[in-house]
Amino acid sequence: MREVFHQSLEDVQARLVEIAELVTVAIDKATQAFGASDVGLAEEVIEADDVIDDKAVALDELAIEILARQQPVARDLRIVVSALRMSASLERMGDIAEHIAQLTRMRFPDRAIPKGLKSTFLKMGRLDVEAARQLTELLRTQDGDLIEAIRSADDELDDLHVAVFEKVLSDSWQGEAAATVDATLASRYHERFGDHAVSVAKKVAYLSTGDWTPSTDAIEIIAKD
Amino acid sequence: MREVFHQSLEDVQARLVEIAELVTVAIDKATQAFGASDVGLAEEVIEADDVIDDKAVALDELAIEILARQQPVARDLRIVVSALRMSASLERMGDIAEHIAQLTRMRFPDRAIPKGLKSTFLKMGRLDVEAARQLTELLRTQDGDLIEAIRSADDELDDLHVAVFEKVLSDSWQGEAAATVDATLASRYHERFGDHAVSVAKKVAYLSTGDWTPSTDAIEIIAKD
Repeated sequence: MREVFHQSLEDVQARLVEIAELVTVAIDKATQAFGASDVGLAEEVIEADDVIDDKAVALDELAIEILARQQPVARDLRIVVSALRMSASLERMGDIAEHIAQLTRMRFPDRAIPKGLKSTFLKMGRLDVEAARQLTELLRTQDGDLIEAIRSADDELDDLHVAVFEKVLSDSWQGEAAATVDATLASRYHERFGDHAVSVAKKVAYLSTGDWTPSTDAIEIIAKD
Repeated sequence: MREVFHQSLEDVQARLVEIAELVTVAIDKATQAFGASDVGLAEEVIEADDVIDDKAVALDELAIEILARQQPVARDLRIVVSALRMSASLERMGDIAEHIAQLTRMRFPDRAIPKGLKSTFLKMGRLDVEAARQLTELLRTQDGDLIEAIRSADDELDDLHVAVFEKVLSDSWQGEAAATVDATLASRYHERFGDHAVSVAKKVAYLSTGDWTPSTDAIEIIAKD
């Protein structure tokens, strides 16, 4: 039974890695499209999001099947519940990539990045992609060092998010209302992508250490809305 | 065993109702504080959010304990998994109330509602509170008519959200960048509170009908980020 359970967990892990890979491609294309006002690339991200949704639903169904058939308890049970939460967070990361692509499409043929913020958003985009790659690798290898790397990318994203607001609220800001709206939404999307990456990374840490901290976990969940 | 399980489910339901009641108080105070620039009331909401978080964590722990001890299968299992998801959504609704309160505190002593949008945001606030009250009642009574009422409040919120952007992007908009940022964030918070209410309501519909539609459910989950 343990053998069967561990095979099931490997299946769950492989699916989490697969979804994380798709999310990485989505955020990579979305931030490139956003930076280059590439509406074709943005369309690709928007269309591809359904695949991420479907794979997350399939993973949830697998987790529920494991609960029903193998009736795990104690730490095994928490691992499966944790997988359900990770799948929801990865889905949201894919959705954020889609939101960034939608901003790009909405403004096309105008540039989506407000004047004066290009380098900031390009940095945020690179950090989002970096965090997604590190998260995929973390899910694959459970190498704990990656958790710190993801946290530090998220810290940089938080600082850049603050910098965007400082810029928008400074006297030097010449942007029209539309540019201010775009900067506000785009910055929030980029910053929250990092928050979700940290949220998933924390759950992986739990899977590998068994150190279950529900309150932190819950704060993590709600802090993202 | 069924008897024990049904007692456990009643406990889960009672806790969901209790959290929904706290969320209703939070959004009521938060939207009042936002409308009246009442920083004291805003502080109350910000402080009270920890209670909602703790109760949601306790509910998650109870759900996991039910899975471990009673090993539900089939529909019973899906009900418990669904409760975990409802608790996460209610937590997020409480967090959105806190975000609205934080906007109020951030702008104090200035008014948090940008000029020209007061009546729109007061309407959005009333709709959020209405949706929260209806959701609490739905969780208590499982009266299916309330699901439609919550959907229609959410539809109105979506229309008002669009109206806020139309206003902000119109030539008549005189707001400074700070007002545009506030309107963008506040409108998004108000609108998403309704989305979460619908998300929870759909799960209640499932609990009462047994009609499990994972893909809709998943789209519901990700559509909120």
